[in-house]
Amino acid sequence: MPSSRLRKTHRLPGRFFFLKYRHMSATTQFDLPDFLATRTEAVNRALNRFLPSEKTRPATIHKAMRYSLFAGGKRMRPALCLAAAEACGGSDAAALPLACAVECIHTYSLIHDDLPAMDNDDFRRGKPTNHKVFGDGIAVLAGDALLTQAFEITAQAKGWPRYPHRDLILEIAKASGSLQLVAGQVADLEGEGKKISAGELRYIHERKTSALLCCSVRLGGMSANCTPTQLRALTDFGYHVGLAFQVIDDILDVTQTSEQLGKTAGKDTKAQKATYPAIVGLEKSRKIAGQLTAKAFAALKAFKGRAGALEALAEFLLKRDK
Amino acid sequence: MPSSRLRKTHRLPGRFFFLKYRHMSATTQFDLPDFLATRTEAVNRALNRFLPSEKTRPATIHKAMRYSLFAGGKRMRPALCLAAAEACGGSDAAALPLACAVECIHTYSLIHDDLPAMDNDDFRRGKPTNHKVFGDGIAVLAGDALLTQAFEITAQAKGWPRYPHRDLILEIAKASGSLQLVAGQVADLEGEGKKISAGELRYIHERKTSALLCCSVRLGGMSANCTPTQLRALTDFGYHVGLAFQVIDDILDVTQTSEQLGKTAGKDTKAQKATYPAIVGLEKSRKIAGQLTAKAFAALKAFKGRAGALEALAEFLLKRDK
Repeated sequence: MPSSRLRKTHRLPGRFFFLKYRHMSATTQFDLPDFLATRTEAVNRALNRFLPSEKTRPATIHKAMRYSLFAGGKRMRPALCLAAAEACGGSDAAALPLACAVECIHTYSLIHDDLPAMDNDDFRRGKPTNHKVFGDGIAVLAGDALLTQAFEITAQAKGWPRYPHRDLILEIAKASGSLQLVAGQVADLEGEGKKISAGELRYIHERKTSALLCCSVRLGGMSANCTPTQLRALTDFGYHVGLAFQVIDDILDVTQTSEQLGKTAGKDTKAQKATYPAIVGLEKSRKIAGQLTAKAFAALKAFKGRAGALEALAEFLLKRDK
Repeated sequence: MPSSRLRKTHRLPGRFFFLKYRHMSATTQFDLPDFLATRTEAVNRALNRFLPSEKTRPATIHKAMRYSLFAGGKRMRPALCLAAAEACGGSDAAALPLACAVECIHTYSLIHDDLPAMDNDDFRRGKPTNHKVFGDGIAVLAGDALLTQAFEITAQAKGWPRYPHRDLILEIAKASGSLQLVAGQVADLEGEGKKISAGELRYIHERKTSALLCCSVRLGGMSANCTPTQLRALTDFGYHVGLAFQVIDDILDVTQTSEQLGKTAGKDTKAQKATYPAIVGLEKSRKIAGQLTAKAFAALKAFKGRAGALEALAEFLLKRDK
């Protein structure tokens, strides 16, 4: 369970449906703020090492890549990757390149999603988006270069006989490709302003969020030479955390004020984006979020007490009020 | 040397500086049209197998990916990859996945280069560009998905102890990343309308063209478990063919009519793009093209008569009038 400081920040007044899953927490003393601080620093140092410097020619592209990569992202995917490695008895050192690779993929997808041709967002995390600073052309190329960089970094990770580079690359390529991450963005674009079903919304969330979260924890496990049983548990965990996260995001968008969220509330509704509350109602959305959350925590039983970091991260992601 | 039919089509009236390299051709009877026809068909079949069908959900993205991938490209990079494999005693079967991967990279780069945010081209190979048919958002995503697909396909190629998947992936990632292919496009964008030096123009051509040509032949060699000496020769060959190709392209843009080229002549000049003739003059450009061509052919000596296909392809690319 997160430390008291974190619990205070992320306790959800009025959203007690989460409370019943609290007892599943195996590690009552896990220091998540410390875990996040140390791992974020390690990931930032590694990313800084992997990426060409801002002065490397052509300077513009490296400035643009670094601008978005170091724009204050919470490094949730890398943290999940490292936590999964720990749960399987692995080391941060072996998982770090893969953690950096998934962060490059995540950042590339944000840069491209923000483009005028897609979601047309001017701000992200309170800063002007990549194309607002560098122009649309460079933003497209910065995304391209980060996507490519992810594979270059993955190729430099340590492989195992059970998980050779071939498998690590396939893992990232499949999670990011036309059947997953890209598919999610396509379906999202095509669904805008249309009435879509709960099944279609789930299809989008599975691809836009679950695919890369799943990939992050699976790669963490693979870096630790995990057993096939552990890999299945991680898959199950990542999938449900991703879906639950999105449903909760949809709920918060309609229940919280902009001030509480620290970003524009009701944005999805305004942009005519389909959300769970809009399709199935608020109460049913909360029930679904609760079920998905329960499934995510249940998957962690396979790690017999070693999944403290994963559990704390899931609580951080799923028991939040913004 | 190409067959008489091909020689006739590609003989260059008035551009006799090439003739002195003719004697280097080791294979006087190489049937290039047959080689290109059979290999193009094999590559198309393989690409069709590797890519999700047009009906696979979301259909839009797979239609968009296939639209550009099967838009009548000459498959020069795949052909070079297969020819390099043959020169090193390898098989088409082992080289085919890598040949398909480089074609996916090439196609992705064209889709993104054509975007309004970059070169803003409405037509390519006489057909509307990807974004004109599918919209800018889907075109960005189709490029992203093809780039990702290239790595997925590479991971499925056969590796060798000397050239494991790790190396194959690094080969493609480095050739396509922020220091090569993307760097070339960035420098090209930034150089538009500016007076640039011959050195800067060479920097662009090396990255926009040579990097992926080099990668194509190197991957072909690697698929054949080539010797380090052969790999060096292929690198040398790919690099010089790429550069020579670009210089010749620049020359043809100013010396040939639109009718002769089958595309708009003088386009580079009009777009205020730097060209060799504009920077160093037509005569010096021809001299440079001749020198680069000579170096490309010289690199093939390492293959002692087995480089018939590579030699014929180089002649096809460098001794052309359009």
